[in-house]
Amino acid sequence: MSALPAVFAAYQRRVTAELERLMPAGDGPVERSMAYTALAPSKQVRAVLVLACAELCRGDVARAVPAAAAIELVHSASLILDDLPSMDNAPLRRGRPANHLEFGEAMAILAAFGLLNLAFGTLAGAYEPPLATRLATVTSDAVGPAGLIGGQAIDLRSIDQQITFEALERIHRGKTGALFVAAATCGALTAGAAAEPIAALAAYAKNLGLAFQIVDDLLDVEGDPAQTGKAVREDARKTTFVSFSGVDGARQIAAELCETADRALAPFGARADHLRDLSAFVAARRQ
Amino acid sequence: MSALPAVFAAYQRRVTAELERLMPAGDGPVERSMAYTALAPSKQVRAVLVLACAELCRGDVARAVPAAAAIELVHSASLILDDLPSMDNAPLRRGRPANHLEFGEAMAILAAFGLLNLAFGTLAGAYEPPLATRLATVTSDAVGPAGLIGGQAIDLRSIDQQITFEALERIHRGKTGALFVAAATCGALTAGAAAEPIAALAAYAKNLGLAFQIVDDLLDVEGDPAQTGKAVREDARKTTFVSFSGVDGARQIAAELCETADRALAPFGARADHLRDLSAFVAARRQ
Repeated sequence: MSALPAVFAAYQRRVTAELERLMPAGDGPVERSMAYTALAPSKQVRAVLVLACAELCRGDVARAVPAAAAIELVHSASLILDDLPSMDNAPLRRGRPANHLEFGEAMAILAAFGLLNLAFGTLAGAYEPPLATRLATVTSDAVGPAGLIGGQAIDLRSIDQQITFEALERIHRGKTGALFVAAATCGALTAGAAAEPIAALAAYAKNLGLAFQIVDDLLDVEGDPAQTGKAVREDARKTTFVSFSGVDGARQIAAELCETADRALAPFGARADHLRDLSAFVAARRQ
Repeated sequence: MSALPAVFAAYQRRVTAELERLMPAGDGPVERSMAYTALAPSKQVRAVLVLACAELCRGDVARAVPAAAAIELVHSASLILDDLPSMDNAPLRRGRPANHLEFGEAMAILAAFGLLNLAFGTLAGAYEPPLATRLATVTSDAVGPAGLIGGQAIDLRSIDQQITFEALERIHRGKTGALFVAAATCGALTAGAAAEPIAALAAYAKNLGLAFQIVDDLLDVEGDPAQTGKAVREDARKTTFVSFSGVDGARQIAAELCETADRALAPFGARADHLRDLSAFVAARRQ
């Protein structure tokens, strides 16, 4: 697994500590299955984005930590679902056997359900009322048919099918982009940001998320499983940005999306350099 | 499907209208899969319980309708999961093919995920802040490892196993009781009820939920699929209250639980007669 820029290491430690704290007590299979994926080594890009956006909006990073953990819980839930036999049937995730191979399919599904549920419970429990409600709405919108679930549904239908570039973009804006946008928005909301900076950060996150997904596609072709923690070429039956544009073309698109992302940061000046570091990392990562 | 007492028909109509309103726009497979189960004919016992408790606590029934719909969405999500091949592998639900037989396993799982997500989105969107947060916490606690998911996980492990009567009770308090308790609590909370009536209604709901599950076990042995909407004897590989106590014994236990439930209603006097009608229905239902 590739490392994020060192400046984010403190964020990652906080998020990991919060996730450990949030895991349900008890050592039944569903509790262990939830922790297995939620606490597996991960870059936690989405959670880092929450905290970086909170800090950029002059918020208290500590206050944003539960929201960052909630976004990461949603992401972990979606990874468990993605890997299921009925979906991508992937054997390897985060360098370990996929959740369903370790705990069985039924328990994996319950764990995914439990992680999504825990995300909403965390938001409701950690924030005072008006903020808790807004965060839950933003998260629910990102997960629903216009976001993650919708993207995954179109993705499933596209297996062994020819799809257009636009359809592919729609899949990834749903599967990946929506939760990136929710992460940036939630981070800014915990800082009490106004509508304008929230919109700028959402624009940044939307393009960053799509770039991140394109590089994921590239790594499925080029990556070293020992580094990516996933088997190579799992997505061979799907159309990807690489199958449309080739390896060099896809990397070029990712770089351009990161430039577009960075342009949305202009109003923040040099204070947004951490987010520029993040997009530079996404554009360049080879693992 | 057996009918609830006529007094609840108006409640059911309101909940159905709200569920129809909440279903996501669009006719993609995930949207249709969500609606297929969420809008299938159903007694909506849990939703009725929300509204009856709100009314009993002198609340506005209209105000409790979104919470009732949210509880019903959670229940629908859990039914989709229960029926999956990796869980109970059930062919029939609410008189129709199970969701995964109609839409495929992957889409069914996404729909269940989508319905749980929609439940939290509904609570966040429909209530003003302090109430929205409490309702989300109550719901999340009922779904988590101490409730629905935990009960289902123990249930899965008990297939083809000898389990104790106490373990069986724990399974059903999780799988069924927790959401009944959440339903009563959410209804009372929307009415602004105090801690004491909430506790009384939670005690009622806990016993009613367990009675409801025992009668479900009975109907799996005795029921007519044309009436119950489910195949008979699906649960033959599981220990049930019927396998412990026999048909007559199980019906006796259910009747006693309903009496215990009714005793918790004493503080409300005759105003709780609707809830007594509900427990009488649960104790007596043959379909």
